[in-house]
Amino acid sequence: MSRPAPRKPEYHKINKDLFVLTYGALVAQLCKDYEKDEDVNAYLDKMGYGIGTRLVEDFLARSCVGRCHSYSEITDIIAQVAFKMYLGITPSVTCNNSSRNEFSLILDKNPLVEFVEELPAGRSSLCYCNLLCGIIRGALEMVHLAADVTFLQDRLKGDSVTEIGITFLKKLDEKKYRRKK
Amino acid sequence: MSRPAPRKPEYHKINKDLFVLTYGALVAQLCKDYEKDEDVNAYLDKMGYGIGTRLVEDFLARSCVGRCHSYSEITDIIAQVAFKMYLGITPSVTCNNSSRNEFSLILDKNPLVEFVEELPAGRSSLCYCNLLCGIIRGALEMVHLAADVTFLQDRLKGDSVTEIGITFLKKLDEKKYRRKK
Repeated sequence: MSRPAPRKPEYHKINKDLFVLTYGALVAQLCKDYEKDEDVNAYLDKMGYGIGTRLVEDFLARSCVGRCHSYSEITDIIAQVAFKMYLGITPSVTCNNSSRNEFSLILDKNPLVEFVEELPAGRSSLCYCNLLCGIIRGALEMVHLAADVTFLQDRLKGDSVTEIGITFLKKLDEKKYRRKK
Repeated sequence: MSRPAPRKPEYHKINKDLFVLTYGALVAQLCKDYEKDEDVNAYLDKMGYGIGTRLVEDFLARSCVGRCHSYSEITDIIAQVAFKMYLGITPSVTCNNSSRNEFSLILDKNPLVEFVEELPAGRSSLCYCNLLCGIIRGALEMVHLAADVTFLQDRLKGDSVTEIGITFLKKLDEKKYRRKK
């Protein structure tokens, strides 16, 4: 697995705070639009899905990652290359079952919540960063990998860490998963 | 006017495409929420205002800009330091009147519209990037400078350039405009 530096890294960078505050405005808007937390979560996931389907081609081109041969390897790429490239953080990865299709990304820090001290009042079931789950799900689907992606723990809800669970739903079909150029 | 490099630049950077696509999702959501373009524009401006009031302190701390003595100098800082720091571009600046309180920022390229080929159908009056105007207005107000900030031209509307107009509304009071540490 080769991990060369992305091409033209500076051209692709912008200030994080601008993104984090804009994302906060998006979540606030959805909380105005939808009364139920579940609906906000679903909408963030749906938005993220659309973003993931568009980001993945750029990611594959810029990251130059090779073909992966296991779910474990794919999850490592998500954590160590994709999260690093897009959010500047590297979650740690754990495998959660013996059939090796369930993984967790453990985020020690989460830039998206840097300006968020706590969930809004009456919004205790909000998955504030659910856009990330949608992005991962959308990006994986574009390389023919079906997955459930959900927050298992969230510091904003009082958990000790923030944990994103990824469950791959099908047997890995190597023929289908090819690197795009 | 000193312009040292921002501190810890990498820590503050994230991938631009993620921001641009998330911003697109925000605008699309507001277009669902508000029938009239004017309402979407006003809402983007209001959201931007809130973001600007929060960004400015970080900007002043990181940019280390000194006190400005003219509107011209302030506009140069916005174009050459703030736009560069937050969006990675440097608009050119023109002064539009003899009393030197009306300026234009001319954007040759606009990262926020990189994935936007044209305005959505029936949305010909949408100021897609109006968040930027709000951010500038909010940031200026936090340093006690009242200004009107609006899009004067927009490539998305068929204009040859994208132009943000800034009109400073009061006589510059140097006592009030101090750099925060």
